[in-house]
Amino acid sequence: MEIRPVLMIIGVLTATLGCSMFLPAIADALVGNPDWIVFVTTGLITTLLGAGTWAATYQRDRALTIRQAFLMTALVWVVLAMFGALPFYWAELGLSYTDSFFESMSGLTTTGATVITGLDNLPPGILLWRGLLEWFGGLGIIVMAVAVLPMLQIGGMQMFKAEAFDTPDKILPRAAQIASGMMSIYLLLTLLCAICYWAAGMSLFDALVHAMTTVATGGFSTRDASIGAFNSAMVDYTAITFMILGSLPFLLYVGVLQGAWRPLLRDSQVRTFMGLILALSFVMVLTQILNNIEQGETAVRHALFSVISILTGTGYATTDYGQWGGFAVSAFFIITFIGGCAGSTSCGIKIFRFQVLFLDLKQHVREILFPSGVFVKRYNGSILTDDVSASVMSFIFLYIAAFMVLALALSLTGLDSLTAFSGAATAISNVGPGLGDIIGPSGNFSSLPDISKWLLSTGMIVGRLEIFTVIVVFLPRFWRS
Amino acid sequence: MEIRPVLMIIGVLTATLGCSMFLPAIADALVGNPDWIVFVTTGLITTLLGAGTWAATYQRDRALTIRQAFLMTALVWVVLAMFGALPFYWAELGLSYTDSFFESMSGLTTTGATVITGLDNLPPGILLWRGLLEWFGGLGIIVMAVAVLPMLQIGGMQMFKAEAFDTPDKILPRAAQIASGMMSIYLLLTLLCAICYWAAGMSLFDALVHAMTTVATGGFSTRDASIGAFNSAMVDYTAITFMILGSLPFLLYVGVLQGAWRPLLRDSQVRTFMGLILALSFVMVLTQILNNIEQGETAVRHALFSVISILTGTGYATTDYGQWGGFAVSAFFIITFIGGCAGSTSCGIKIFRFQVLFLDLKQHVREILFPSGVFVKRYNGSILTDDVSASVMSFIFLYIAAFMVLALALSLTGLDSLTAFSGAATAISNVGPGLGDIIGPSGNFSSLPDISKWLLSTGMIVGRLEIFTVIVVFLPRFWRS
Repeated sequence: MEIRPVLMIIGVLTATLGCSMFLPAIADALVGNPDWIVFVTTGLITTLLGAGTWAATYQRDRALTIRQAFLMTALVWVVLAMFGALPFYWAELGLSYTDSFFESMSGLTTTGATVITGLDNLPPGILLWRGLLEWFGGLGIIVMAVAVLPMLQIGGMQMFKAEAFDTPDKILPRAAQIASGMMSIYLLLTLLCAICYWAAGMSLFDALVHAMTTVATGGFSTRDASIGAFNSAMVDYTAITFMILGSLPFLLYVGVLQGAWRPLLRDSQVRTFMGLILALSFVMVLTQILNNIEQGETAVRHALFSVISILTGTGYATTDYGQWGGFAVSAFFIITFIGGCAGSTSCGIKIFRFQVLFLDLKQHVREILFPSGVFVKRYNGSILTDDVSASVMSFIFLYIAAFMVLALALSLTGLDSLTAFSGAATAISNVGPGLGDIIGPSGNFSSLPDISKWLLSTGMIVGRLEIFTVIVVFLPRFWRS
Repeated sequence: MEIRPVLMIIGVLTATLGCSMFLPAIADALVGNPDWIVFVTTGLITTLLGAGTWAATYQRDRALTIRQAFLMTALVWVVLAMFGALPFYWAELGLSYTDSFFESMSGLTTTGATVITGLDNLPPGILLWRGLLEWFGGLGIIVMAVAVLPMLQIGGMQMFKAEAFDTPDKILPRAAQIASGMMSIYLLLTLLCAICYWAAGMSLFDALVHAMTTVATGGFSTRDASIGAFNSAMVDYTAITFMILGSLPFLLYVGVLQGAWRPLLRDSQVRTFMGLILALSFVMVLTQILNNIEQGETAVRHALFSVISILTGTGYATTDYGQWGGFAVSAFFIITFIGGCAGSTSCGIKIFRFQVLFLDLKQHVREILFPSGVFVKRYNGSILTDDVSASVMSFIFLYIAAFMVLALALSLTGLDSLTAFSGAATAISNVGPGLGDIIGPSGNFSSLPDISKWLLSTGMIVGRLEIFTVIVVFLPRFWRS
């Protein structure tokens, strides 16, 4: 396989990441924190290495084969996480490289699990860098979901390729235009979110960092107590709104910008997602009232916030739902796996795959009861072909298998069952917090053994890249010519 | 829908169950325990009601339509469990009807979860009745797997219809002959097992009851400490051998009786099952040695015993593997779902479904890497068609969904997460013990709330009847003409 085009793209993206390190350098310099030197140094190293790789492998023809696209996708997230870890490692935090890599991977994959305590007293550079990592990660995943995954035909994403490029009523004709359209929208949403946070009473810096991690459904905060630290209903509702907006298919926003609201409002995935949020929140309001936790508006807000935070894989906390009783804990564990809409920044198995699953089940029951009937599956107005179903099924099974293997591996490193299982779930689904005292909503990943952190980092990238992308690269068959 | 043929079959089977109640009556009469009157009374009631139903609905034509077959299958297990509960309810045990029904359903579905403590001091009648329930349940499931499920086309079982009835090298041509052949084999294995237990030092009574619950992979014992109470390596190895024999496809034994060993030894499902046992046991031996639990032969025996007991859904215990550390607990939780071979007495998702899954995944990866290639899936020498794959996938998803719904419902009844999740898993997979202090290998289901017991009983029958059979009956579509 020709590896030069792969390295060229990785070089460009690494250089871009390196350039962005100068932003936290500026933030630290403004408040006189010596970490600015660290950011400038790592920024230079990363930019130069990236640009050097790009220059050394430069060629006109930028088209990738399917295999090169797989390799590029799997490799680029690891390389970026390695460089993204450098500021954590060299800054005054005193983190080990394991912890730094964990934090960096957690950011880039928009997981939001952290090993850092005492966030409230950190200099602005590090806090901004955590926000930037998640923001870039969120942008990366949207572009990947539209431009790369459908081409690789994995996990049923080919369904969305058809929508974006092949249908007669195409919104924007070319991939590059779509990508730049989505970037503008991503930026716009982030700015809107920052303004809302700021209007709700956050400092400009807090508003900016939280806007970046909200729209990316990442979940890093500038406070140990997460969004709960601001103790403001307005802040909570802002987070609720923009976590949802970050979890809808970004492709449909491109239409909205041009005045076409209909596709967004009538989209089957979006409607199911919103319905699910309402149903789950209703149950959680009841849970709080019946267990005498909270009443009225507070109960509604906490229910909405927690359900959306876990469902979208953001991982912010305003309250410890671990105290809502056994049912809530079990339910949140299951919600961890669901995720938002395909083509958004959110994580997990994703709504459309459950819809495909349900359509297949319905079809199967029909065929059992009416063996001589002929039935056609339709999703969002189009015919659902069997190869998409097979692709979705394979995805979900690999997802479950990856979760179980990771949970077992984590158990081997000495974690208790609750920490191992919920840790595996939260890493693969890029949610953030797990369950229990150690890694639960009020806990932290810092006390875990190093080997567990590497396993969790692996789980994050495997989950973020929709499993197949990573596994395929390790098959001997992949490398055979 | 014409319901008379359904009631006729249920009548015959109820009368048969009623007649079998005279066996524990004899056992209690021999030792002078007054419970013999209870068994005679319930035996008379059950036999008469069953025979009456049969007589009232008798008709020459016994052929069932697909829908009648579904209804019969779902209904017969509930009716038999209701009558099977009567001896527990009226005997001197003092059980509530909830507890009696739980115990009866646990027996008939070969789950082996119990609410009775102080087994060592119980009269022989009750102990024999528990054994008989599991023995009948095991026999029922083998016959169902060969004669009913393939016709209903659920869960990929149609694959085995082809093997049994349609292929040119058919072993026995007609369903009745197959059923009677399998009954003889079931009886033969039970007798052999009883002789081995007796030779290993059990009393004749203990040997007989344990033989019935071993071959049925049920797990009821005559002792609170289960098989561990006998503290004998010979007893352990007997259990190990016959739990495996109960989990292989009984159809292949029919061939063995006629001298055809090859199909059994070369069967893909059997080989994978045996390989899995060896691999898992090896890991569990290591776990015990590394955690300084046991060494040498004892470690090997305990590993084999525990892995086989959970994998096959028997649920016997010789030792509390909850003490083997977090990894063992997590691993046993996952093993709970796997199960033995299709067409055996064992439970769970079953080996062949994982094989089909793996073949589909392999196919999918091939298609991603070689988009223009054409590939054929083969299972056990035959071509694996897409409808079998779809059927298997639907089954596994419903299985997982049923597990999650049950776990959530159990959480709602006030159980902690570990008890709720492992209880749901052990009920749906008909294994027996769960995890944790309450329902773990050294615990008992008696302390759970009544509502939890009804939920668990429902889980047992849903799992035993391969999910679809029960769910289909509740669909409005099922009752539409």
